[in-house]
Amino acid sequence: MATEIPDLLISEVGPRDGLQSIKAIMPTADKFKWIDALVAAGLREIEVGSFVPASHLPQMADTALVVRHALQHRGVTIMALVPNRRGAAAALEAGVHKLTIPVSASAAHSLANVRKTREQMVEELYAIVQLRDAIAPGVKIEAGMSTAFGCTLQGAVPEDEVIWLAQQCIAAGADETGLSDTTGMANPAQVRRLFNKLRAAIGVKCGAAHLHNTRGLGLANCLAAYEVGVRTFDSSQGGIGGCPYAPGASGNVVTEDLVFMFEAMGLNTGVDLEKLFAARLLLQAGLPGEPIYGMTPEAGLPKGWLQRSPSHGS
Amino acid sequence: MATEIPDLLISEVGPRDGLQSIKAIMPTADKFKWIDALVAAGLREIEVGSFVPASHLPQMADTALVVRHALQHRGVTIMALVPNRRGAAAALEAGVHKLTIPVSASAAHSLANVRKTREQMVEELYAIVQLRDAIAPGVKIEAGMSTAFGCTLQGAVPEDEVIWLAQQCIAAGADETGLSDTTGMANPAQVRRLFNKLRAAIGVKCGAAHLHNTRGLGLANCLAAYEVGVRTFDSSQGGIGGCPYAPGASGNVVTEDLVFMFEAMGLNTGVDLEKLFAARLLLQAGLPGEPIYGMTPEAGLPKGWLQRSPSHGS
Repeated sequence: MATEIPDLLISEVGPRDGLQSIKAIMPTADKFKWIDALVAAGLREIEVGSFVPASHLPQMADTALVVRHALQHRGVTIMALVPNRRGAAAALEAGVHKLTIPVSASAAHSLANVRKTREQMVEELYAIVQLRDAIAPGVKIEAGMSTAFGCTLQGAVPEDEVIWLAQQCIAAGADETGLSDTTGMANPAQVRRLFNKLRAAIGVKCGAAHLHNTRGLGLANCLAAYEVGVRTFDSSQGGIGGCPYAPGASGNVVTEDLVFMFEAMGLNTGVDLEKLFAARLLLQAGLPGEPIYGMTPEAGLPKGWLQRSPSHGS
Repeated sequence: MATEIPDLLISEVGPRDGLQSIKAIMPTADKFKWIDALVAAGLREIEVGSFVPASHLPQMADTALVVRHALQHRGVTIMALVPNRRGAAAALEAGVHKLTIPVSASAAHSLANVRKTREQMVEELYAIVQLRDAIAPGVKIEAGMSTAFGCTLQGAVPEDEVIWLAQQCIAAGADETGLSDTTGMANPAQVRRLFNKLRAAIGVKCGAAHLHNTRGLGLANCLAAYEVGVRTFDSSQGGIGGCPYAPGASGNVVTEDLVFMFEAMGLNTGVDLEKLFAARLLLQAGLPGEPIYGMTPEAGLPKGWLQRSPSHGS
């Protein structure tokens, strides 16, 4: 690795976004092993589950246990997704370091997904912030602006509405607001434009890029986001989760390929690719028969990779 | 499409680079239908075959016939790959508009691939230029610098050697020299740096970016090349060809995904995506059972795509 201090943060969302999108349920013990391996590979932020009713997402029923296990790793930010106050209360009780709350930029998606208007979702966020302030003030809260780049229900989402909603989330007390390409509709020009607008609107509270690979543009969009100053990237080991449409069409950006891209560019992600490939085996072991994605693990590291100088690629 | 004049040129290499990498042989009549469909989709430069011994690449044995068929389409540049004078003579006799000649930037790859040193390959190129000047002076000659971004045999390829060799090719009479990521080792920072150096060395004779998707970085690398002024991109329908290592790991950049990326960014490629998807069916029909790649065709065009304004995405 180039330096001790990483140039950017890869936020691994596989244990939440990935596992909750797959019908099969990964056994709790396998989740533990997988998360341990992700930590060993150098990942420093991991979204380990969702606090949602088990009847709705049985894959996430053990999230409190998973959080408790993951908290044993020092120096790793343990995150969970919560859609509402009830979930937030459970997550705070479990001891997470950071909450992520999905807020739909698309009016149609918001109603369809959480049966709330966007304004009602901002109220929910405000209530979660109040709860956090009351019982766990050190916990960070991120609003993740879903469908920020387009919506399968309504098509285009006006950029002004995305930015307006991000501002509402910050006003409600979120520590940061990121942008999510929930539907895989983003393109690099749009990614640059919208993150620039977001930064102009909320400054350093501009959060992560959560980009999908639905149409193969995931890495190009991450590159575009990096170019305009984004330094936190959500991705999923094996590309699990998101909204895969077809075999080979992964949903989330593949952590392995994303780390390879940035490391090959000479940037330090803090992640060891060979150890990341080892973690992939534990993902596969915990979800036998499930398709997983990623080209770098299949192709292997290029000849000469390990012989790179400390300032590789510069 | 945004304007009458495309912003960039997609050079379709599937009928050559794709088909010669696949063991199955596409029947000549199916090649005709596929190429006709590619033209109908708006592709304006197509590499239709290689002039190499049929004993070596039986998939390319009908290249002269394919060239003759393709030449019926007005306004489309018909290209062929030729590795030597003998191939060039056959290609010029068949009537191609443009020759592409692979020149390995890696000394080790050059010897292994064509059993010639790089200097000997430049001499071969010079002889081809002489032949062209004598019998078909209107034909363009492109040198494609293979392994420009790294080599599976020798690892890193010194950038100074790539640029030196490109200058030798131009001095030998090539009209343009492009850079090829034969081994899928390129990263966006390197693509920017090397194309910038190439432009500084050979100016407007800087040719196409021929990038692979071996490790998933194909589109990100094309984006990087676009950013530094490259306007011609080689790609392959269905991602066939190149050096696929594994299912899902296509070799060449997928034309469908590349066109989608640029069009989504508001750039006019001149290619109609729905007609391109129609051409894909003919590729599949001509190669039954062969895996083909590409995420955009599987996911489909995003909602609202057809309703874009003429200045979409700007």
